Amino acid sequence: MGKQYLLAPGPTPVPPEVLQRMAEPIIHHRSPGYEKILGEVREGLKYLFQTKKEVLIFASSGTGAMEGAVTNTLSAGDKAIVIEGGKFGERWANICKAYGVQAQILPVEWGQPIDPGLIAQALKADPSVKAVFTQATETSTGVLYPIKEIAEIVSRYPGTIMVVDAVSHLGAVELPMDEWKLDIVVAGSQKAFMLPPGLSFAALSDKAWEFVAKSTLPKFYFDFKKELKNLMQNQSAYTPAVSLVMGLAESLPRIRKEGLENIFARHARLARATREAMLALGLKLYAPQAYSDAVTAVVAPPGVDGQKVVKILRDRHNLTIAGGQDQAKGKIFRIAHMGYVDKFDVIMAVAAVEMTLKELGYAVETGKGVRAAMEVLSK
Amino acid sequence: MGKQYLLAPGPTPVPPEVLQRMAEPIIHHRSPGYEKILGEVREGLKYLFQTKKEVLIFASSGTGAMEGAVTNTLSAGDKAIVIEGGKFGERWANICKAYGVQAQILPVEWGQPIDPGLIAQALKADPSVKAVFTQATETSTGVLYPIKEIAEIVSRYPGTIMVVDAVSHLGAVELPMDEWKLDIVVAGSQKAFMLPPGLSFAALSDKAWEFVAKSTLPKFYFDFKKELKNLMQNQSAYTPAVSLVMGLAESLPRIRKEGLENIFARHARLARATREAMLALGLKLYAPQAYSDAVTAVVAPPGVDGQKVVKILRDRHNLTIAGGQDQAKGKIFRIAHMGYVDKFDVIMAVAAVEMTLKELGYAVETGKGVRAAMEVLSK
Repeated sequence: MGKQYLLAPGPTPVPPEVLQRMAEPIIHHRSPGYEKILGEVREGLKYLFQTKKEVLIFASSGTGAMEGAVTNTLSAGDKAIVIEGGKFGERWANICKAYGVQAQILPVEWGQPIDPGLIAQALKADPSVKAVFTQATETSTGVLYPIKEIAEIVSRYPGTIMVVDAVSHLGAVELPMDEWKLDIVVAGSQKAFMLPPGLSFAALSDKAWEFVAKSTLPKFYFDFKKELKNLMQNQSAYTPAVSLVMGLAESLPRIRKEGLENIFARHARLARATREAMLALGLKLYAPQAYSDAVTAVVAPPGVDGQKVVKILRDRHNLTIAGGQDQAKGKIFRIAHMGYVDKFDVIMAVAAVEMTLKELGYAVETGKGVRAAMEVLSK
Repeated sequence: MGKQYLLAPGPTPVPPEVLQRMAEPIIHHRSPGYEKILGEVREGLKYLFQTKKEVLIFASSGTGAMEGAVTNTLSAGDKAIVIEGGKFGERWANICKAYGVQAQILPVEWGQPIDPGLIAQALKADPSVKAVFTQATETSTGVLYPIKEIAEIVSRYPGTIMVVDAVSHLGAVELPMDEWKLDIVVAGSQKAFMLPPGLSFAALSDKAWEFVAKSTLPKFYFDFKKELKNLMQNQSAYTPAVSLVMGLAESLPRIRKEGLENIFARHARLARATREAMLALGLKLYAPQAYSDAVTAVVAPPGVDGQKVVKILRDRHNLTIAGGQDQAKGKIFRIAHMGYVDKFDVIMAVAAVEMTLKELGYAVETGKGVRAAMEVLSK
């Protein structure tokens, strides 16, 4: 039969109603109809980002908005701190490098929690640092970063902005931009937005916009100032990805209807069910001390290759999760419960992992993990 | 009833079968299924670009690939020639400026033909020029540029590449990349590709790839070398716009089935019918000497505001075309016949223009334009 199940940390499943909306005939973007829709989208994005500021929209993957966060706020030779505890921390460092920004790397062991004290120390040692780049959830490890605490520290430095890659986080786990004094929050459509990949987002605080005014790094497509000017007219600087924006116009009201508080509670419950199930199977979490509710990274049992778990799940059970990357390759597998996901998706994933582990020679009492998940989910 | 008709120069109509394909459940991009599809897409793109080289795919609007064409081949301070005869020529100049490339502007009066001799002169005067940037069809004026002739001149200079923005051109009008010795061809999904906006493309000759090896301008998201490396593995450097790539996998075989020769002939016929109809109505073409078959720019009759023509077509007749931009604003209107467009779309557009002009006080014998179009189309 080949029915497919998707539980990877992006792309994530898209509701049929959203797919349908995107399949409507294309409308022209320079038209009152489109502008009205974009006006509503702007409000929906502010709700999702928990900000009063505008949220810029780009036709690109999340990396595009990350690049823009660097090139629109900094100048060549500027200093920055990059918290690097996984693949996406490395991405911040690589973008800085590409543009001649002097990034001081704060290395964090993969899977381990972040100590905000390190950022306090680093900023105290060198207050001329212009920006702190971090993730909210590091997708590659499943670690949740203490954003509120780090932002509190950064906010004491008027010459430093706090830049958060919330691609695998926003809309799944709490991240109130204005309340936590975050200066830039970057997101992507293919995660908790319940959309296909192809749109990225960036919201900036007043402090960040002041940096934009002084930045001299070159930029063109990801020019935040130009994009803001157009957005204020319900337009975009360049032709927008109309069908994806239509999908956004469908998914944002769904998010508003469920309500952020309920959405975060749902993700917390699904994540807890996943974690409890894995522990019941005798497995270990890759981030036991600081796990995110967006994606759960699980250590493959001794003698079992994590990549094989992913491959068998995909090839034999038509269920897609993700493996480990780089140093975590083969060691872990990652189950996402982000976006358009509810309780039976988790049960299905746990059942599939159980069956796969058994096929790989890791014997457990059948249904033990599923039972543990059900116990959490029926509370 | 409000049935909508779209005849703007991007976005253009998308076949229902392509919309449907894009509405299928999202698949993961790191999977054999996706990689197989991307492998087929690569071949389809080579056919469309008429090249043996790989065609890079980006999640962005066409401007993103244009920026990449500059940042991947040049270094700060490099000299370039920009042929500027409209809005998109200006865009090349603005990108060069943003990145510190010294662009010598060859200004061309809007709507007027380009004299390739000017490029020969400019290169003779300064052979240190690294790149010539041009359009194939300038969307804002409907002018067709003599790409073959210009490329022939540029190809005599080993230190100069020929970079063509073919966004409103490729797949509608002949542009054999390899045969004409074009070094970079840039395209966008929302034109003759029969897709929504959100993908851009760039193909590079061997000569252009040699420039890439020496370029020092900063880039990250639009890094051509990194993208090529991933593409060779049927992958992309960053999360691709999966649903749009699925649409591409549906539209490219349609293009191949119709055949480029037939496609160009269809566009030529539709364009001629549009032109003859406008002339029959006593109107003038904005580019009477060098018109493109992708989009027809028409001068609004004396006393009639071109913007009003567009507005009434849209608000009263639910038919979208485009107006003039900047210096051509109010003076012209533009009818596109590009991509998923056939003969009755043109007849419909001509009928709507006739009705609108009458409403604006420009009296013509009813059906005169339609008759002229029909005469061309029934040949």
